[in-house]
Amino acid sequence: MKLFQPLSIRSMTLPNRLVVPAMVTRLSGEDGFVNEDIRNRYLRFAKGGAGLVVLEAMAVHGSKSGPLLRISSDEFMPGLRDLCTDMHTIGPGKVVPQIIHFLKIARSGWRQKVEDLSIADIRTIRDEYAAAAERSVRCGFDGVELHMAHAYTLSSFLSRLNKRRDGYGGTLECRLRLPVEVVQAVRAAVGDQFPIGVRFDGEECIKGGYTLAESQLIAYRLVQSGVDYVSISAGGKFEDAQPRAGEPLYPYTGYSGDRCMPGKTWPDGANRYLPAGIKTFLRKQGVATPVVATGKINTPELAEEILAAGDADLIGMARPLLADPDWPRKVQGGHFDKVIRCCYANVCKARDEHFQTVACFLWPKGSKQAPESDDTVPPQWDRQLTASTAQGRVSLKWSAATDNEEVYGYDIWRAVEGGEFERIDAIPAPVTAYHDTATISGLGYRYFVQAYDLAGNRSERSIVVEATV
Amino acid sequence: MKLFQPLSIRSMTLPNRLVVPAMVTRLSGEDGFVNEDIRNRYLRFAKGGAGLVVLEAMAVHGSKSGPLLRISSDEFMPGLRDLCTDMHTIGPGKVVPQIIHFLKIARSGWRQKVEDLSIADIRTIRDEYAAAAERSVRCGFDGVELHMAHAYTLSSFLSRLNKRRDGYGGTLECRLRLPVEVVQAVRAAVGDQFPIGVRFDGEECIKGGYTLAESQLIAYRLVQSGVDYVSISAGGKFEDAQPRAGEPLYPYTGYSGDRCMPGKTWPDGANRYLPAGIKTFLRKQGVATPVVATGKINTPELAEEILAAGDADLIGMARPLLADPDWPRKVQGGHFDKVIRCCYANVCKARDEHFQTVACFLWPKGSKQAPESDDTVPPQWDRQLTASTAQGRVSLKWSAATDNEEVYGYDIWRAVEGGEFERIDAIPAPVTAYHDTATISGLGYRYFVQAYDLAGNRSERSIVVEATV
Repeated sequence: MKLFQPLSIRSMTLPNRLVVPAMVTRLSGEDGFVNEDIRNRYLRFAKGGAGLVVLEAMAVHGSKSGPLLRISSDEFMPGLRDLCTDMHTIGPGKVVPQIIHFLKIARSGWRQKVEDLSIADIRTIRDEYAAAAERSVRCGFDGVELHMAHAYTLSSFLSRLNKRRDGYGGTLECRLRLPVEVVQAVRAAVGDQFPIGVRFDGEECIKGGYTLAESQLIAYRLVQSGVDYVSISAGGKFEDAQPRAGEPLYPYTGYSGDRCMPGKTWPDGANRYLPAGIKTFLRKQGVATPVVATGKINTPELAEEILAAGDADLIGMARPLLADPDWPRKVQGGHFDKVIRCCYANVCKARDEHFQTVACFLWPKGSKQAPESDDTVPPQWDRQLTASTAQGRVSLKWSAATDNEEVYGYDIWRAVEGGEFERIDAIPAPVTAYHDTATISGLGYRYFVQAYDLAGNRSERSIVVEATV
Repeated sequence: MKLFQPLSIRSMTLPNRLVVPAMVTRLSGEDGFVNEDIRNRYLRFAKGGAGLVVLEAMAVHGSKSGPLLRISSDEFMPGLRDLCTDMHTIGPGKVVPQIIHFLKIARSGWRQKVEDLSIADIRTIRDEYAAAAERSVRCGFDGVELHMAHAYTLSSFLSRLNKRRDGYGGTLECRLRLPVEVVQAVRAAVGDQFPIGVRFDGEECIKGGYTLAESQLIAYRLVQSGVDYVSISAGGKFEDAQPRAGEPLYPYTGYSGDRCMPGKTWPDGANRYLPAGIKTFLRKQGVATPVVATGKINTPELAEEILAAGDADLIGMARPLLADPDWPRKVQGGHFDKVIRCCYANVCKARDEHFQTVACFLWPKGSKQAPESDDTVPPQWDRQLTASTAQGRVSLKWSAATDNEEVYGYDIWRAVEGGEFERIDAIPAPVTAYHDTATISGLGYRYFVQAYDLAGNRSERSIVVEATV
């Protein structure tokens, strides 16, 4: 599989093409130091075998924030250095911190905007990025990723809504000015060999925002400035965020947030046209810089198909690897059938929006981390399943499976008409019912259910039931 | 060209694959009768040679609205019948009315929602559609198109945000119930041979809205209910519309409005993945129903490529055919070089948003219709052009061309690095300057400008100038 071929990015050779993109965890204290929960989260990712693990985002500056790692002064380095060393020991992958600058925001609804920054402020931001990047070299990280996506400072400079008129906004080239200055300052600070990545939006997904037509140019300009890989996200903006009484405005709560982390209602690989369009443009200019695709990429088949089509060089999986950090190891060993599969319920996203610790809906209740087990005994059951229909939906009920350790959940499989069975959802145990609301009359549906345990061992399939709405 | 091959849809044979999709004109009086301005607008489209012209939308009910055609009682039939007869006489294309039901809206911000409708209201809507469709048979139209897109009643039933709990909302099948009942009632009213089309959103483009995953099923269910073609739009919803003081809320003013009529900042064919995804699904189910693609499709090359790729069977062009209704005739005669080309400035969209008569930015000032001329003499000029750069943009200036009739405008052509020249914009005369803000440093740009007259005769190209930012 192309997915398990190595890839060199400047001084760093990734053992495979799988990336854990930066994900908010809300596991650190507000002090920003590495703690035990953070360590456990990232050691699990490292052990799981992803080729590249991107750490959080961590702040380059001292501004107040919620629980978020920091790399804004040397005092944060020992914890980061130890974590990095231990991740290198426990897994084959490379490790880079994602470094972020964000603007101020208040519960009143007020938020600082890029138009409010003085030239001195802008120079400080540039210098803070450079200093943080230099610290990441001293921590032993394999590279550094600059956060230029979503609702944060550098993304807001890139935005088509950046209205500055002093050479740091307005035209595309001026909107790129600070991001380019940051890349150049970071390069000067980290030296010639250290890989620098950038994560930015392929499309802003807000009214008046930029689209692929400009993000192709943004990618090219960043690469020409010294960037070694580009990781493509989408949306996640303040402009369409939904206000909630008594809480500061939070990006990801509007339509652009849906586009950033496409949930159940979106097609698989919903954003792949963005890395594809950017990669096509870069290659046309003779630039070989690797491109990372993300956004509801779940199965080895889809990941492989994206790589084979040349739509991206690396596959980022956030939610699927949160659900099961061992996805890479299991799939490389030929055991996708043992992967605990994300169902895109976006409970992780909702927890983040409500300022709670980010955990997976599928994990056993109260767990801070994905469970681990070496058990090889699959769940047992009587395979009984029934289907009924009412109000345009199909309702499934099945008898509970049992397991020597613990039944973890059930995958729901469906075939439309004579087509192939596809897994459409998952339900954590002990629930033994499911409602399929994405059904219409005029088509016939067949279903089966399969139980899995903590190690991902699958039971026999239930009987197949048929239904029409 | 595939574009000029005929296509049969039930009793109607279109002479080519070009469609004028329904476009608001605001040319009728508030009484809803056909008037001279409306006649001139549609006779121009018919004369231009499009295979199918869709008329406005026109209301099936008597509710108060702005200037909009009506087909809500027999008194509106004589004007519609005459217009239809005259369109058939003047051009080769077929003519269908798009019929619409919309809910009430007030300047206060209040708007009626589908959840407010009683079962009696719902039956009335169904019956009004059926009666209007039957009138369209008696008017001599070639078919009828049901408006199920954007912010209007049937689209709001289809929406994932339809929260009714009485069998007309909630699950997909229940959201489809009224639209399906309307199709069935219309079929019963118009008989077996009369073509019925539906225009609906391939994606709602709002938070929580449906995506291609459901619009594939919507298309299938509508087709199974008796629909003969599906025309795919996107967005255009109330939910993200921007409130404006003293004006009723207007769809198309938010992000979903940008997605509905993608402007300058969007890639060409921005929405083609929607008809493509829907067509793929229909064909997989063995359904051959034609699919119409729309959304920033401008050139014969792109239209042909979409047809050749099988992404659609028909090409809808709203803004390009508003700019030049003779696009079909000129292109069929091998003269795309004489087409007045839309520049996607979206002034037509802005005029509609501000409740003004819809006209094209490129038309001579004050014109209610696209100009006509049989002149064959191209504009003359000294071909001088200069480029300068400042603040990240390239500014072009040229000397004015002259013409025996009238210089209409200038096309701006650009090549990036050693690439091919592409037309990037148009500027109406007498302006002789242009600012290109979509430029970045690190790439070289070359430009030329070409003048055109009312008939679309092009001048010689200006000299080529080079610029770097």
